[in-house]
Amino acid sequence: MEITSVNNEKIKYLEKLKQKKYRDLEKMFLVEDEHLVLEALKAGYVKEIYTTNNNSHYEVPTYVVTDKIMKLISNQVTSSKIIALCYQMEEKNYDGNIIILDNLQDPGNLGTIIRSAVAFNFNTIVLSNDSVDGYNPKVVRSSEGMLFHINIIRTNLEEFLDNLDNTYTKITTDVKNGQNIKDIHFKKCALVIGNEGNGVSKKIQDKCEVKVNLKMNNNCESLNAGVAASILMYEVFNG
Amino acid sequence: MEITSVNNEKIKYLEKLKQKKYRDLEKMFLVEDEHLVLEALKAGYVKEIYTTNNNSHYEVPTYVVTDKIMKLISNQVTSSKIIALCYQMEEKNYDGNIIILDNLQDPGNLGTIIRSAVAFNFNTIVLSNDSVDGYNPKVVRSSEGMLFHINIIRTNLEEFLDNLDNTYTKITTDVKNGQNIKDIHFKKCALVIGNEGNGVSKKIQDKCEVKVNLKMNNNCESLNAGVAASILMYEVFNG
Repeated sequence: MEITSVNNEKIKYLEKLKQKKYRDLEKMFLVEDEHLVLEALKAGYVKEIYTTNNNSHYEVPTYVVTDKIMKLISNQVTSSKIIALCYQMEEKNYDGNIIILDNLQDPGNLGTIIRSAVAFNFNTIVLSNDSVDGYNPKVVRSSEGMLFHINIIRTNLEEFLDNLDNTYTKITTDVKNGQNIKDIHFKKCALVIGNEGNGVSKKIQDKCEVKVNLKMNNNCESLNAGVAASILMYEVFNG
Repeated sequence: MEITSVNNEKIKYLEKLKQKKYRDLEKMFLVEDEHLVLEALKAGYVKEIYTTNNNSHYEVPTYVVTDKIMKLISNQVTSSKIIALCYQMEEKNYDGNIIILDNLQDPGNLGTIIRSAVAFNFNTIVLSNDSVDGYNPKVVRSSEGMLFHINIIRTNLEEFLDNLDNTYTKITTDVKNGQNIKDIHFKKCALVIGNEGNGVSKKIQDKCEVKVNLKMNNNCESLNAGVAASILMYEVFNG
């Protein structure tokens, strides 16, 4: 099927999904670039595909669009040649290690953390209500398809931590007074990482039993949030 | 001193420094945001300061500029209130651990790696000639001031590796056949990290004696380049 008008209802719908408000409302999101669209197809989350290539064959309804339309719906400076309209994943029950993000703001950091979480067997990622959207286009891109391999929950963190069963050790970072992560072992953990500038909020910190840090040179005050989260998950995975 | 015209020669000069070409030529660069300007002052690299605040007092020549001028010279969407014109750091001799970047492209990744390098005592960072510029505004910002605590060398990597003395073990990553970094110990290392999409080029790989990897879940093909570099430096630091 071909679409040539920028006023087509389907195109207007895709355009709206650039905004978090509509993604939340519709429970849909967009995935760009062929390798990521293929990951989304493999995972079974694609409803429709929009492409500028009129020789494409996919197992879902596929629309051939003009370059002008692609530019309109793409979120990238150099617009991609293919975009998939995808269903958001349903929140699942959790059991293994969990990574919890308290007001994380940078989409690149979230994508990186999702990628590392899958690498180090943290199967669930919990976002505070004020964190960046997990379906933000930059998150989707920087997660390199790993988004489809993780359980994302967005909720009130205080309530979530209060309701966590006691097989979990709740840990967070404390650059000054934390124990070296290498000296601690736990069966199952809920690891809380904070905001890029301000760290973990006081009320969330107070709910964590263990404070950890990483050994580093004093010249460096702190690591990038995505790196700190990744090294801590790596240590838990290898511990 | 006040500057009100966007045609002022000093302002035109600052505008030019948005381009790598002129930064290379002039050996100067720009630093935005108060906390980073203070780091630059502390490190002694600031030549002049430009600010919209006419109550500022710094130990270097300071110019009060209009919001319009600030918007013109700033590299940020929400332009900052202060910009420092800084001298680029001179390349120094190296001795300790070295991190080497082969065609790294993302400025956020480079900033993150600089920050982690300082944290984990890698005092020198070597950039291939085709890597992103170390003085790119996004690198400066994401390095969180750590740029001033590291020795940056930009050069031909093949020559650099050939000339490295034999107290260095040259290591790089190999996701498939590398040895677990935890199983290896070396006195002093030159760690090579590759391009975000394509990894380390064949000819550079061939010059490395040891190939390493990180233990991870098979669902994840690879980590973000900044994260991979950071975990490897962390392991060397803690090894």
